[in-house]
Amino acid sequence: MTAPAGDPVARLLDLEAIKQLKARYFRSVDSKQYADFRAVFTDDATIKGTFASGSDIDRFVADVADRHAGAVTVHRGADPEITFVDGDTATGVWAMFDLLEWQEGGGPAEYPGFRGFRGFGYYHETYRRVDGKWKIAELELTRTRIDPF
Amino acid sequence: MTAPAGDPVARLLDLEAIKQLKARYFRSVDSKQYADFRAVFTDDATIKGTFASGSDIDRFVADVADRHAGAVTVHRGADPEITFVDGDTATGVWAMFDLLEWQEGGGPAEYPGFRGFRGFGYYHETYRRVDGKWKIAELELTRTRIDPF
Amino acid sequence: MTAPAGDPVARLLDLEAIKQLKARYFRSVDSKQYADFRAVFTDDATIKGTFASGSDIDRFVADVADRHAGAVTVHRGADPEITFVDGDTATGVWAMFDLLEWQEGGGPAEYPGFRGFRGFGYYHETYRRVDGKWKIAELELTRTRIDPF
Repeated sequence: MTAPAGDPVARLLDLEAIKQLKARYFRSVDSKQYADFRAVFTDDATIKGTFASGSDIDRFVADVADRHAGAVTVHRGADPEITFVDGDTATGVWAMFDLLEWQEGGGPAEYPGFRGFRGFGYYHETYRRVDGKWKIAELELTRTRIDPF
Repeated sequence: MTAPAGDPVARLLDLEAIKQLKARYFRSVDSKQYADFRAVFTDDATIKGTFASGSDIDRFVADVADRHAGAVTVHRGADPEITFVDGDTATGVWAMFDLLEWQEGGGPAEYPGFRGFRGFGYYHETYRRVDGKWKIAELELTRTRIDPF
Repeated sequence: MTAPAGDPVARLLDLEAIKQLKARYFRSVDSKQYADFRAVFTDDATIKGTFASGSDIDRFVADVADRHAGAVTVHRGADPEITFVDGDTATGVWAMFDLLEWQEGGGPAEYPGFRGFRGFGYYHETYRRVDGKWKIAELELTRTRIDPF
């Protein structure tokens, strides 16, 4: 962590708050708790590198809900690198793993004929403090490996 | 992290202590160091959602040792969400992954005919400080996916 | 974390710096950014338990670059246990996962006839602060499971 000018204890608390924000991102999407999932993002959040890139955030959450309706999903984060830009803004890189499997003859639209996939990659993100709570303001997913099955 | 009233630096040190407690849980069970595994729990710890739920903690540790005797096991944690209830009590949610494979014709009792399984889920836990050391007082495992092989 | 004598806030900042150091280890090796990968190690770093054990650190980095040239690699850390020895030295244990797959008919030299492998294990490491930056001074990898494919 590169701590900017300011109270280092406040930055350490912010750091943990951002890690728990990303934990809620993962847990809410996998448990299909979409109000909680929406709440991890700012109202003007931008999403890149996913099947629904370019949508506004409400549409993105709705698109994720539609896509995952027939699937069991597992998303995991690892090895975060969080850097503070100023007291209310930070950037982060997270390694990620996901495993999605569709039920009942469904499958990922981008891999016709497959039931699901395992993937690896990275999130590059920006976090912003809004009304005292850290939120994801920008998310870009880059993938290094996908194995359909 | 929601820090209760009290010294934030003390809470940050407690937070790291709880993360390392869970790391020892994982490492001791996978290395079959059962004295170390027992030591991560309080004497009155309760376990739910596992093959040996409802046992007292000494019996639970003995049951795990029996079950894993013929297996190579891998357990991993991710994405912890720790919340302090008071200065000596905290709750936590951890995402988990496990991979168990039995050797020499063995297998998991609950999946006859299989050699092992990969699983995903969550631990919901309570931690308590006992004689100055954080311990797991309550553990409940919920699974979202199991793939026998 | 066992904090040695000294400022606990400084130790918490050091702890996060060491976690991010290991995150850069993983990300730089998987993205083949070998100058960044070299920069996570001290000049006198020692490596044990890998295919290139015993090399000096420049040779180790060159050997990793050669080995991974034809492969997609994924390395992930989990469940760190960092302990401070003094203000400029710490030790750590990390659980690890890796997945390596060679392209175009290549494969891991140690598993002839296979395209790659998935592995699990632990890093046992020593960190040292050099010119104000934490570096890996000793790395030993022990594996608990490898599955060639």
